[in-house]
Amino acid sequence: GLLKSAWDAGAGWICVLLVGIAAGATAGVIDVAARWMSDLKDGVCADRFWLDREHCCWSSNDTIYKDSDCSAWTTWPEMFNYYSKSPFSYLVELFFFVAWAVGMSTLAVLLVKVFAPYACGSGIPEIKCILSGFIIRGYLGKWTFLIKSVGLILASASGLSLGKEGPMVHLACCIGNIISYLFPKYGQNEAKKREILSASAAAGVSVAFGAPIGGVMFSLEEASYYFPQKTMWRSFFCALVAGIVLRLVNPFGSDQTSLFHVDYMVKWTFIELIPFGLLGIFGGLVGSLFTSLNIRWCRVRKGNKLVGGNPIYEVMLVTFATAVISYFNPYLHKSGTAVIKQLFDRCGPEDYMVELCEYRNVDGEVYFGSAFASVFWQLSVALIMKFVFTIFTFGIKIPCGLFVPSLVMGAISGRMLAMLTEGFLRAVQDEAGTSVFSCQIGKDCMMPGLYAMVGAAAVLGGMTRMTVSLVVIMFELTGSLEFIVPTMVAVMFAKWVGDATHKQGMYEAHIELNGYPFLDNKGEYPYSTTAYQVMRPSADRSEGGKELAVIVQDAMTLGEIEQLMRDTQYNGFPVVVSRESMYLVGYVTRRELQLALHSARQSQPYVVTASIVYFTAPGQASVMQHGGELSSSSLAPLRLRRIIDLAPMTVTDQMPMETIIDMFRKLGLRQLLVTRSGKVLGIITKKDILHFMRNASDLESITNPNFK
Amino acid sequence: GLLKSAWDAGAGWICVLLVGIAAGATAGVIDVAARWMSDLKDGVCADRFWLDREHCCWSSNDTIYKDSDCSAWTTWPEMFNYYSKSPFSYLVELFFFVAWAVGMSTLAVLLVKVFAPYACGSGIPEIKCILSGFIIRGYLGKWTFLIKSVGLILASASGLSLGKEGPMVHLACCIGNIISYLFPKYGQNEAKKREILSASAAAGVSVAFGAPIGGVMFSLEEASYYFPQKTMWRSFFCALVAGIVLRLVNPFGSDQTSLFHVDYMVKWTFIELIPFGLLGIFGGLVGSLFTSLNIRWCRVRKGNKLVGGNPIYEVMLVTFATAVISYFNPYLHKSGTAVIKQLFDRCGPEDYMVELCEYRNVDGEVYFGSAFASVFWQLSVALIMKFVFTIFTFGIKIPCGLFVPSLVMGAISGRMLAMLTEGFLRAVQDEAGTSVFSCQIGKDCMMPGLYAMVGAAAVLGGMTRMTVSLVVIMFELTGSLEFIVPTMVAVMFAKWVGDATHKQGMYEAHIELNGYPFLDNKGEYPYSTTAYQVMRPSADRSEGGKELAVIVQDAMTLGEIEQLMRDTQYNGFPVVVSRESMYLVGYVTRRELQLALHSARQSQPYVVTASIVYFTAPGQASVMQHGGELSSSSLAPLRLRRIIDLAPMTVTDQMPMETIIDMFRKLGLRQLLVTRSGKVLGIITKKDILHFMRNASDLESITNPNFK
Repeated sequence: GLLKSAWDAGAGWICVLLVGIAAGATAGVIDVAARWMSDLKDGVCADRFWLDREHCCWSSNDTIYKDSDCSAWTTWPEMFNYYSKSPFSYLVELFFFVAWAVGMSTLAVLLVKVFAPYACGSGIPEIKCILSGFIIRGYLGKWTFLIKSVGLILASASGLSLGKEGPMVHLACCIGNIISYLFPKYGQNEAKKREILSASAAAGVSVAFGAPIGGVMFSLEEASYYFPQKTMWRSFFCALVAGIVLRLVNPFGSDQTSLFHVDYMVKWTFIELIPFGLLGIFGGLVGSLFTSLNIRWCRVRKGNKLVGGNPIYEVMLVTFATAVISYFNPYLHKSGTAVIKQLFDRCGPEDYMVELCEYRNVDGEVYFGSAFASVFWQLSVALIMKFVFTIFTFGIKIPCGLFVPSLVMGAISGRMLAMLTEGFLRAVQDEAGTSVFSCQIGKDCMMPGLYAMVGAAAVLGGMTRMTVSLVVIMFELTGSLEFIVPTMVAVMFAKWVGDATHKQGMYEAHIELNGYPFLDNKGEYPYSTTAYQVMRPSADRSEGGKELAVIVQDAMTLGEIEQLMRDTQYNGFPVVVSRESMYLVGYVTRRELQLALHSARQSQPYVVTASIVYFTAPGQASVMQHGGELSSSSLAPLRLRRIIDLAPMTVTDQMPMETIIDMFRKLGLRQLLVTRSGKVLGIITKKDILHFMRNASDLESITNPNFK
Repeated sequence: GLLKSAWDAGAGWICVLLVGIAAGATAGVIDVAARWMSDLKDGVCADRFWLDREHCCWSSNDTIYKDSDCSAWTTWPEMFNYYSKSPFSYLVELFFFVAWAVGMSTLAVLLVKVFAPYACGSGIPEIKCILSGFIIRGYLGKWTFLIKSVGLILASASGLSLGKEGPMVHLACCIGNIISYLFPKYGQNEAKKREILSASAAAGVSVAFGAPIGGVMFSLEEASYYFPQKTMWRSFFCALVAGIVLRLVNPFGSDQTSLFHVDYMVKWTFIELIPFGLLGIFGGLVGSLFTSLNIRWCRVRKGNKLVGGNPIYEVMLVTFATAVISYFNPYLHKSGTAVIKQLFDRCGPEDYMVELCEYRNVDGEVYFGSAFASVFWQLSVALIMKFVFTIFTFGIKIPCGLFVPSLVMGAISGRMLAMLTEGFLRAVQDEAGTSVFSCQIGKDCMMPGLYAMVGAAAVLGGMTRMTVSLVVIMFELTGSLEFIVPTMVAVMFAKWVGDATHKQGMYEAHIELNGYPFLDNKGEYPYSTTAYQVMRPSADRSEGGKELAVIVQDAMTLGEIEQLMRDTQYNGFPVVVSRESMYLVGYVTRRELQLALHSARQSQPYVVTASIVYFTAPGQASVMQHGGELSSSSLAPLRLRRIIDLAPMTVTDQMPMETIIDMFRKLGLRQLLVTRSGKVLGIITKKDILHFMRNASDLESITNPNFK
């Protein structure tokens, strides 16, 4: 007893512990493998081919490790003994770069296509739907897990404009699903399992960004539908365990707590909130534009046979284009995380990131160093190409996330804004003579890295419309509590501008694109409509005017019920006392009814088409039928009381839709019966709600005079 | 139209902005004033009496500022020209110390008693109830706000064992309530107002600890009942604004981001998780013990005339005892935050906190410095006295919070554990010869400050049973992301051990003590009971066996209804078609009915006791009454359809209680009608639910065989 209840209480913790360990380990393996394969595009470690560039250079005892030169690391031209920097060697390099990229992404798409079609994409829209109660069989299965892991390594190594973060959340949820089957309490109960999945999603974000608290907030704000306190605490535990395990596997190869650790010397000033706000507006606009363009392209893919029918060629083409163009731009060539790290960094005295900071050294004649134009040009190209690439990439049939590309775009724009601002300030100062400003421009006036950080948050905010979780993730990523305010201002503007220009974030847009039945749990719907106006069958018989399909508890024959099921497509039927009174007894789902009738036909030979099916309780039947009537039928009756749900959720016809939507969202209902004075009038299903909400939000200001 | 909807959308933001600003400013004023008054117990600034000790010493140009010596600061003996450290001067000091303390706390209790009885206590239990839908009139009014602000300054200056944090949350909620009246949308709608209150609670924690994210998490986890995404984002905004405003007022007088900023050089090792876990267990036990002792004392106060009837003497007595004893112990003498700061600090090379670190200097013969015994003794006394004081303090009639005393207790125990461990390690090393350990004991083996921090989190966790929010608050307090894991381990053990030994945390215990109708939204209740077994009137007529009090829609006279209202105490009545059919029409609250009947009696002279009251729609009446019957009564009827709620929430009698509790919690219901086949059988109110849950949790393992 006590032992059992202890096990019962502990099972959930053990389950999330296992999920955390597995998620951390998986993330570690993926990180290491992706890094190695990504470097493979440029060259290979001569002595120990299994090392990536960084570790290769470490292991060979070169004391100085400068960006691309260490003797142990062999580029592909060097492999073929072209040591000179001739144009031909560049060509060889380019060839290998592109060939590896296309090869890897093709392999990824083949794996996905052959073994696990669900392994493509980011997975977050689907996770959202699953956590809201929608069931997609196999979406969180072990095949999806395996293929998505391998595919993710290949895809992110291929240099495509995609991130590992969304898929990591999907992978963590797969792990959660698989592990939950070890615990009957969780494996056999969908609602319980969703608790584990919420925790898994938190672990996914935790390992993707090294942000356990951000993971919990993400799971709470973005992914989960229902998030009780106990789940929050478990999610936190799970996220933390995953983070620790990942740290032990140590893929970042550093002691830093945070992925993009920043350590700015300068503090921000309140006047800088203006550019931060501008970055936020920009982020919102970029997010909206991106979403609508991407969705448009996805619709083309769905509609057009040529584009949609050849996912493999599509992937190859996109990879080819990406690889060829990326090769020539340093900010596209590198991996997304490396670029973010570089852009977030400050221009310190050590200045190892020369190209991004050199512009600060005044050249005499021009305001800023001659590097200004070249860096600015490279950044612009990188920003535009990243935007274009990502539109075409998000949606192809390989695992791909959206976070890192968004962060890169935002970081580039932020850095560019910082450069422009600094140039402008310098120009003002040169006009006005010396020292208008109390700070030294190009030194301690502003931190271009902070602008990059804020910009990154803004664009990601514009894309996903995340708020609190995004701010928390950003500050866990950078490890600096001081920059919450700038980040927050930017995220707030991004959210407002984004919502104003394109109502849905990327995930909601993709959910709608795929037609999942997802009931958004954000926002409010102050409709003055009542249940009576929304329920089916419609109250005014003019439109359609079918009657409500009901089952009478003690007066229908087997044949009649079978006929009813053939005639209609409904997922369930209300059971009533009689067709005249329409008083509600219960609700029976189509599936249960089908199974019961089928098995009765099979196993009970005396049950024939004319048999009456009773949904009443044995003792109750005779009373309800006014006595005696039972004997008038000589056929053996079929008793099916056990399959009806005696406690269906009901509302009266005057219930406002606002409350009803609330009930659907909070109680996770699938349908609701509408009654008046005890009589069943109609039914409202989740689909009706979705339909109603979509129409209502389109027309609300026109048709609904009571809208406030 | 557009402008109006923009205002509509913006109103909420403006409201929380104002709340944030006001909360930040209030907190700033309170902090400054409390600090000044607290120092007043020891002395006064000679030149500028309005400065506290720290600022006084700053303003006088003493370059060296050592703990208690600066020329401008005049202690009370010095005031009377006793400069020598004679026993008499000590006596004068003691006298002033105690006199000021008793004076201030007496003033506080007088203010509370005369002007605003709701201003006492922490306020968090009540806020929890209010956010769950319970209404306490005047609890968040402007008088409460004013008196609680002043009382809080006095109380925290008096040196009693209490914190400002809980009351700060209450104050912030008062501000939220007051400001919401400026916005009709929020002021006139209780549900909307609760959204503002949730945000205010977050702002309260934010200013109390300088922890905006922690504030949001606190509001989400501990305070709020219903926390939609929009509220979360607004809460975050509100908390942040409050934090910024507080920073501008700058009461901490430093540039530190976090209140107890720590900056340990040494990292923690995994083996240290064992002492951290022990601290967690200790925290859980202390929390449980404290809760049960405090509740027992509160019960004594309630029951005993002598204790309960004289709150002013009680406060004076407690203050006197606290002040006299605290005067002699350095860790009780200082303010709570100062002690925490000191205990969290590391023993750096600068070692300005000599007494706490000196023990590390080896004395030769004894293992540790001679200071060890004295410091350890002082800490033990401080811990025990703090525990005793706080038991008697929490519950007296002045504003008092629980956070800081808990943190102090925890920090002391953590620090003591660290000292013991270091002593033990040193002993082991001395036994075994030199350097058994790779680290230098007393230098870089362990950080006593970290132990204090973890201990503080553990005890606070044991008291309040907070989890994620506590971890977040702790790391925002200390500004170090690295120590999440130790904190979390301790908090987890504290929660587990606490829940195992005393089911309720302090707040829940006080809610139950005060008998508020609070429906806990944590945990699950897997009962196999159905609505039928819980509803009133009870299904089996053996116990009590009253009939359900209903109103028939078209057959009751005014006199009958008035009689019904006199006979029963119910808050509302179901309206049914007829007493035979019991088919549900709607629900009418007692209050509405009373008002309607009263006004009818007053204004409609033709309405007499024998008038029939119709709850039917005008056109409907004749049909429902089978025609003609209307004319049989010559008296003018009273039509009250407008007052009945046509959409009461109903469930069938077979609905499991688990779902019903869920509905009450998530939909914030007050009552629920139980039906079978459309007939009303009974009613379940929030009180019934609370009653059921209390009984069920006491008896679950005995009476409920299906409990799993």
